[in-house]
Amino acid sequence: MLIHSASQLITIAGAPQRGAELGRLGVIEDGAVLIKGDTIADVGSSQALRTQYPDESTLDISGRVVMPGFVDPHTHAIWAGDRSAEFEMRLQGKSYMEIMAAGGGIASTVRATRAASLKVLMNETRQRLQRMFSHGTTTAEVKTGYGLHSAAELRMLLALLRLDLEGPLEIAATFLGAHAVAPEYQGRTDDYVTLVCDTMLPLVKGWWHNHAPFHCYPFVDVFCEKGVFDLDQSRRILEASARLGFPLKIHADEFANIGGASLAVALNAISADHLVATSAEDIQMLAQSNTVAVALPCTPFGLAESHYTPAREILEAGGLLAIATDLNPGTAWCESMQFAIALACRYLHLTPAQAIAAATINAAAAIDRSDRIGSLEPGKQADLIVLDIPDYRHLGYRFGTNLVQTVIKKGRIYPI
Amino acid sequence: MLIHSASQLITIAGAPQRGAELGRLGVIEDGAVLIKGDTIADVGSSQALRTQYPDESTLDISGRVVMPGFVDPHTHAIWAGDRSAEFEMRLQGKSYMEIMAAGGGIASTVRATRAASLKVLMNETRQRLQRMFSHGTTTAEVKTGYGLHSAAELRMLLALLRLDLEGPLEIAATFLGAHAVAPEYQGRTDDYVTLVCDTMLPLVKGWWHNHAPFHCYPFVDVFCEKGVFDLDQSRRILEASARLGFPLKIHADEFANIGGASLAVALNAISADHLVATSAEDIQMLAQSNTVAVALPCTPFGLAESHYTPAREILEAGGLLAIATDLNPGTAWCESMQFAIALACRYLHLTPAQAIAAATINAAAAIDRSDRIGSLEPGKQADLIVLDIPDYRHLGYRFGTNLVQTVIKKGRIYPI
Repeated sequence: MLIHSASQLITIAGAPQRGAELGRLGVIEDGAVLIKGDTIADVGSSQALRTQYPDESTLDISGRVVMPGFVDPHTHAIWAGDRSAEFEMRLQGKSYMEIMAAGGGIASTVRATRAASLKVLMNETRQRLQRMFSHGTTTAEVKTGYGLHSAAELRMLLALLRLDLEGPLEIAATFLGAHAVAPEYQGRTDDYVTLVCDTMLPLVKGWWHNHAPFHCYPFVDVFCEKGVFDLDQSRRILEASARLGFPLKIHADEFANIGGASLAVALNAISADHLVATSAEDIQMLAQSNTVAVALPCTPFGLAESHYTPAREILEAGGLLAIATDLNPGTAWCESMQFAIALACRYLHLTPAQAIAAATINAAAAIDRSDRIGSLEPGKQADLIVLDIPDYRHLGYRFGTNLVQTVIKKGRIYPI
Repeated sequence: MLIHSASQLITIAGAPQRGAELGRLGVIEDGAVLIKGDTIADVGSSQALRTQYPDESTLDISGRVVMPGFVDPHTHAIWAGDRSAEFEMRLQGKSYMEIMAAGGGIASTVRATRAASLKVLMNETRQRLQRMFSHGTTTAEVKTGYGLHSAAELRMLLALLRLDLEGPLEIAATFLGAHAVAPEYQGRTDDYVTLVCDTMLPLVKGWWHNHAPFHCYPFVDVFCEKGVFDLDQSRRILEASARLGFPLKIHADEFANIGGASLAVALNAISADHLVATSAEDIQMLAQSNTVAVALPCTPFGLAESHYTPAREILEAGGLLAIATDLNPGTAWCESMQFAIALACRYLHLTPAQAIAAATINAAAAIDRSDRIGSLEPGKQADLIVLDIPDYRHLGYRFGTNLVQTVIKKGRIYPI
């Protein structure tokens, strides 16, 4: 299949983009892509590809933009329950403690998620995945972490494996047993960390080998934050994970800097995420590593806070920057990477080109898949989106709506 | 037609809501609406209405929320041309003057709009109106003001009349010849004001009588702002408009307080819009009047500014508050009232209930149509939306996506 006459074909060809390189979009005006099966076979000007492949069936998309599907490298898209009443309480000035006392907060999602059957959990999550897909996300990372005991965490992993199999959105799973201390372990964080390290992680490893022997290995992530898991506890969990062969991620410096970013670098984590309270020294260290810095601008926006990831400083230091939605029921129920881009332009001070690269090739690097997805190049998976805009800079410029018209996932066309 | 089994039927019955009253949604759990032709015939519990009207054809919307269509009372939705490159220049730190020198700013939209044929202007605008409609806006105010000479301003009015006739979105037109000083009149603002008062306004009046004798009269609006039209110039235009019988609106206090809000009250304007730099005294005066205060949160968001309308102060003073998108190509290309609600919750400190009332019954009052639209009550026009959410508080809580599933306009069903 030949997709031709794109007003702009955004290839983002080449490696993940460091520092000042970020924003190299490789735009081809009046461009075309040749897809064979689920793979990109050729990329070039419409004229050249039409001449070279005269017999291919064609999809004309004159006047529109074609680019790689978005990769959302940090979401908590799987949960059960409803916290909209809590949002209202927050706006009415109720304190965190009052909301907790009324049964709100993460504990309420944990209760509902534990109580949900596999079917209910899959149904509620599927709606969100479909919404992500219709907004142009073709691959997303999704974390467990609302189970907080072995059975519920494994049920979340099973739901993710099944939803990945259903498609069309592809899922990179992350085990986040250390999202919070389980209610049964309140005040005994170290004991919970021991449970995660000695019981849950080996269990997840064995379970994964039985249920998904040919599937990408899940990441292990930990919420390293003042009042949640401290630096030593986070290190214990991540080191135990590394010993078992899991690739690592970390929630670092969302509210306070307790050393999460430097731990990520020391343990060669694939990504360090949030990075709002990150110090200048930690930015330097991170920027010289291969750990991807993942900014989550929907989270401060969702909370109406004014502190965002110091993205420009990370770029000036030569770092690898990606963006993600952080889709979750507490702080940021947003399925749209287009909206994350609109925020990145305004609050991370990125240009549309930089935000687009951070949402594709660099986001793919943040889930260790930049060899397969994140750009339009021969040999890569045919994950593309068609946007009903004449110029890529409409991404960022426009906000609150969905500009995606067609999603092509593994070579298959899905009109939106 | 009987629409029944709404998880929540949001009626917003009664008059526009002042001050502390704002947010009275009149929720009926498991509610139903009876529609006869284009009009609401009855509203009540599903059980009562099903018993009373056993033979009506029914639309089952179990588990979803039904509410009045959004009214967007302030937009500049009609224009031609593309300013996405200018957005990028702004993010790269280019100054307003550099952007102007590169052909950007409002002048670029004026050039493109003047050059556009009626057909092009209608085509470009229609896409935006359809996007507004698919996001649940059933009636919108749309302003001229990118023509700035008689012929182009009348072409904009003609396009608006035709687009209104096409439907399904209903348009309340506003003549905004005083959006900016026409390029030909640079440095001669008073002369341009004379042109508006002595030539354009009488021309618009005569033209309207010929082209739309049975249609609502257009509003006249003026951009009263430091460096645009000062208080005296704004007063000249609005007084001339009032003498000709036009209802009045005003852009007041967006960046500086030069007295626009008090002028609105003095002239009994239907609405005063923006109101960011409004003083405490002006808030008191406004709140005691019948002029609706229209907050436009997408505009500071679009510009990444931190100053928003002091909505809580307006409510505490007993004012009538509405919200709108301000959809325009320079500062806020956003067609979604849902997103305006999400911003209102975070930056105007409204609850979802308050923001919803501000986006429906009070927004209808801001275009003087609250007798016909803005609530679900017998006798009102059947403009409803069905949202794929179990609780109205998902509006505001969730952001960046479209939660509308079905729009019913004048009794006709439009699946989204």
